[in-house]
Amino acid sequence: MRFISEQRFDDGVLEREFILGDIPGILWTPASGAAPAPLILMGHPGGVRKMYPRLVARARHAAASGYAAVTIELPGGGDRPRIAAAEEARVDLRRAVEAGEPVSDEIVVRLVLPLVEKAVPEWQATLDALLELPEIGGPVGYSGGVIAIGTRLAAVEPRISAAVLFAGSYVPRSLFEDARRVTIPLHVLLQWDDEGNDRQLALDLFDAFGSKEKTLQANMGGHTGVPRFAGEEAGRFFDRHLR
Amino acid sequence: MRFISEQRFDDGVLEREFILGDIPGILWTPASGAAPAPLILMGHPGGVRKMYPRLVARARHAAASGYAAVTIELPGGGDRPRIAAAEEARVDLRRAVEAGEPVSDEIVVRLVLPLVEKAVPEWQATLDALLELPEIGGPVGYSGGVIAIGTRLAAVEPRISAAVLFAGSYVPRSLFEDARRVTIPLHVLLQWDDEGNDRQLALDLFDAFGSKEKTLQANMGGHTGVPRFAGEEAGRFFDRHLR
Repeated sequence: MRFISEQRFDDGVLEREFILGDIPGILWTPASGAAPAPLILMGHPGGVRKMYPRLVARARHAAASGYAAVTIELPGGGDRPRIAAAEEARVDLRRAVEAGEPVSDEIVVRLVLPLVEKAVPEWQATLDALLELPEIGGPVGYSGGVIAIGTRLAAVEPRISAAVLFAGSYVPRSLFEDARRVTIPLHVLLQWDDEGNDRQLALDLFDAFGSKEKTLQANMGGHTGVPRFAGEEAGRFFDRHLR
Repeated sequence: MRFISEQRFDDGVLEREFILGDIPGILWTPASGAAPAPLILMGHPGGVRKMYPRLVARARHAAASGYAAVTIELPGGGDRPRIAAAEEARVDLRRAVEAGEPVSDEIVVRLVLPLVEKAVPEWQATLDALLELPEIGGPVGYSGGVIAIGTRLAAVEPRISAAVLFAGSYVPRSLFEDARRVTIPLHVLLQWDDEGNDRQLALDLFDAFGSKEKTLQANMGGHTGVPRFAGEEAGRFFDRHLR
């Protein structure tokens, strides 16, 4: 892990861009660096630069409560090499949605599976590197989308203690097997009126999670309209489980 | 409205039992009675005496945040005269659930409709009487079950500004028309693994509500196992809308 830039905000939060192998990422650490901070892995739909305003807002909000936060570019996102199979599947998905046709599981598998298979070990390598830093402690939470990635990570990575999952993207039904293996506390956010999402699929996925403590919170406001109070409740979920 | 007993708790909350016509009820008012308090109508499945420990806990929790809270006995509940049609329907419902058969809408109509039609005007009469008291102001919220009663009340009673609805009982599909007419902010609690409830019906009802701001929060723990944090979030919902 090589840090390539740093800046400190008014609130004392330190932002550092890094490169890990060929994966770019950003780490935010809170002002009061006395004890090693618990860590939140922030997922997103790809394209860190485009997503930066939302990511930095989420990270500074988390840092205000004492968390470090990190994000890495998604495989195929930003300037990373495209994944041809996933790109083709994305075109097929858009075509199906625009034609008002049901989205077949076969398309979703082609779109999501390569992402999951690449992204999960990358998150694990990021975790290995960050937990070496004296300012990062634990426990570790995952927050955000792509929900298929968060689900697999929660299933296979024992260092993740709790997850806030954003149910705003498709999950192949074959990956429900991952969901059944998840046992950590979950807080799942669903935008009830998300035009580009499959609500029934999201509900079925929530049902499949093996966790004894799981909460589904569904709100209105469309795909990008998660209400402010829902973000705050997700923060309280982490406070209950990561401190 | 005739008060028939009163006691004051350690925390200063005043509890008064009353009779309104032939309806028994309990009013709790907060300690600091400077300004007229906002009011929460607390619904329950019937049998105030049996439900008292939960009701008083909910009321004192609300009073600690400055709310007055009131409950009245359900038609057919406690010592009130039984409603024969509803009693028969309850037997039929239990028989269907125990036999693992689907519960027909016809049974649900027979069970719930008489309750809704009696309880809603009783809540309105209670509201008329309470808003005469100098210590009760507004705004007014509804909290709890029976969800068909809360739904009808939210649809027809303009003095109710926000509602926390507990989706733990059946609603006739013919009453979804009420749900479509509801426009106030809603916070709907669903116990995902509630054995005696119809989850799909609850989800369909949530979908039917006309409110622009509506939240569904689903948790684990069975019918009576609403987690403590979910109660606290419902409290914050009222704080956003009743203050």
